[in-house]
Amino acid sequence: MTRTRAVLTPRPGAPFEKGDVPLPQLAPDMVAISIKYSGVCHSDIHQARDEWFEGIFPMVPGHEIVGEVTEVGSAVTKFKVGDRVGVGTFVDSCGECGPCRDGNENFCRTGNVQTYNGRQYDGEPTYGGYAKDVVVKEDFVLKVPENIDFAASAPLLCAGITVYTPLKHWKVGPGMKVAVLGLGGLGHMAVKFAKAMGAEVYVLGRSKSKEADAKAMGAKEYLVTSTIYETHRNFFDLILNTTSADLDLDDLLGTLNVAGTLVYLGISGRPQSFNAMNLVTSLRSVAGINTGNIADTQEMLDFCGEHNIVSDIELLDMTEASAMDRAYERVVNSDVRYRFVIDSSTI
Amino acid sequence: MTRTRAVLTPRPGAPFEKGDVPLPQLAPDMVAISIKYSGVCHSDIHQARDEWFEGIFPMVPGHEIVGEVTEVGSAVTKFKVGDRVGVGTFVDSCGECGPCRDGNENFCRTGNVQTYNGRQYDGEPTYGGYAKDVVVKEDFVLKVPENIDFAASAPLLCAGITVYTPLKHWKVGPGMKVAVLGLGGLGHMAVKFAKAMGAEVYVLGRSKSKEADAKAMGAKEYLVTSTIYETHRNFFDLILNTTSADLDLDDLLGTLNVAGTLVYLGISGRPQSFNAMNLVTSLRSVAGINTGNIADTQEMLDFCGEHNIVSDIELLDMTEASAMDRAYERVVNSDVRYRFVIDSSTI
Repeated sequence: MTRTRAVLTPRPGAPFEKGDVPLPQLAPDMVAISIKYSGVCHSDIHQARDEWFEGIFPMVPGHEIVGEVTEVGSAVTKFKVGDRVGVGTFVDSCGECGPCRDGNENFCRTGNVQTYNGRQYDGEPTYGGYAKDVVVKEDFVLKVPENIDFAASAPLLCAGITVYTPLKHWKVGPGMKVAVLGLGGLGHMAVKFAKAMGAEVYVLGRSKSKEADAKAMGAKEYLVTSTIYETHRNFFDLILNTTSADLDLDDLLGTLNVAGTLVYLGISGRPQSFNAMNLVTSLRSVAGINTGNIADTQEMLDFCGEHNIVSDIELLDMTEASAMDRAYERVVNSDVRYRFVIDSSTI
Repeated sequence: MTRTRAVLTPRPGAPFEKGDVPLPQLAPDMVAISIKYSGVCHSDIHQARDEWFEGIFPMVPGHEIVGEVTEVGSAVTKFKVGDRVGVGTFVDSCGECGPCRDGNENFCRTGNVQTYNGRQYDGEPTYGGYAKDVVVKEDFVLKVPENIDFAASAPLLCAGITVYTPLKHWKVGPGMKVAVLGLGGLGHMAVKFAKAMGAEVYVLGRSKSKEADAKAMGAKEYLVTSTIYETHRNFFDLILNTTSADLDLDDLLGTLNVAGTLVYLGISGRPQSFNAMNLVTSLRSVAGINTGNIADTQEMLDFCGEHNIVSDIELLDMTEASAMDRAYERVVNSDVRYRFVIDSSTI
């Protein structure tokens, strides 16, 4: 097995097509995985269209991967053939820098190896989850609990850990009021996690179109963002911004309680502006995070097993590669509830 | 005793003169204090000149007060005549809102009663520390340790607590790298506290003119801010901004380590701008705080007693009221090392 069948885009913004791409040789510390399901993340679109930086093409996006182990390297100790596993946004890190030594591979100073549109440390390009197979170092492979729906667990590997990290870092629990700005792939996971952690959860959005969904997921209230600046002053302990919109920071900061924090998970790329007075008067913070480390990712998956939490998904049949082009359009239009997941058997 | 002799300004920006102002009636829960020393805070200047909002005149500024108890109300239990005490930036709070119930009188939702240029809840104006006497509710009076220099302890009541609060909140201790931006009234206290807490302390400034002072106070290094953006990337755990300048936030955020925080203590009043990418890539935060609560203020004073920490001061003889006008000019020009303190016996 040196190549795998995949759904790829040959050039920035070009329609998807089927093809095949090379796989890494199975080294002693690596695991070969037959991909069963793979989520479609909004960041896939930005990269497939070269909207962030010059990508590596052909590109096989996808960093929300679940599958079964088909082969293990001679030195592998954590996995065996048949195990239910996952792979997230990165597949290697230097292991030597301060963050890596602290177990924060996501902040690797050398730059970790992204699951796709990146390069292994030997220079070979990486190819992601829109494929039949992937070969990954065991230290970057996660165990997926047996009791949760397999297809719906794929988005946990990126959307899940991205929202779990700040909820853990800011110690969300009973008695806390958590606002989730934007109910999409990330936002709907944030609602489920924060609710399971015991917090009171509020979803903030532009319209009330997703109110019923939000409440079904565990939100106490769905609020139209523009109305809360007066009604919910000094109210929230944590606001998670899962959108990539520019924020009215001064207005939003006014809704944070003493020592409250607003966390950017999505970014617009444009400068954000605020008056520091809105921080100093109540010990407020503005923070940001875009993923989590391997240990927290495993903890999050175990938490999902314990609380039976998965993503709300729409399964994608990839018999025709053009299904991905249509899916991208729907993601861009926020027309998916709440994550597309590829059925890899159809590739 | 219904009035006290004071140094006051009759109108916004007018020269200081001597006069007298009324004192509150000594209620059962109040303490009368003969002021011995009173610090001069930069915020006094903003208020005496109506630079922030329309003030109450005549104005007697001053919220860094130390003195001796001369009389106690019938219900007072914590203080007796002769006690060495202090009063900070506020002298009452509603006691009923969420923050007050949590012991955070500094964040009182009703609005706490500022020590000067404010109004008691009965509507009477408050007059501050540039005076011979003050009468304050015992719950807002602090005990000043016997072993520290009395004059040099006055600035602890504002400059001290303002920097102590974030150092405590972000759990500064051994192994942490703390940067103090600006070596003035607040900054020099931050250096002393952070050093006493066991952190490695770096002072950031525009020139090296205060390098020797910074090192004498305990700083490991004095760095010219504009040079650190390349040399100290991902370096600091906490940056305290004690200046009221606009910050090059994106550059400064790049010098914060994983999960590091930049805290505004001073504010320019103008919008501050950043790219959220500089937060999300390393779980960084931007925060702000402008003072502390009563319990933390007492804890800070006790910490000063334990570590023999006081402010570096220049004592002001107020025989001529115009000495204050000259002092203000020097504060505005950052020409004081590091805090003016009034010798109240000269008023």
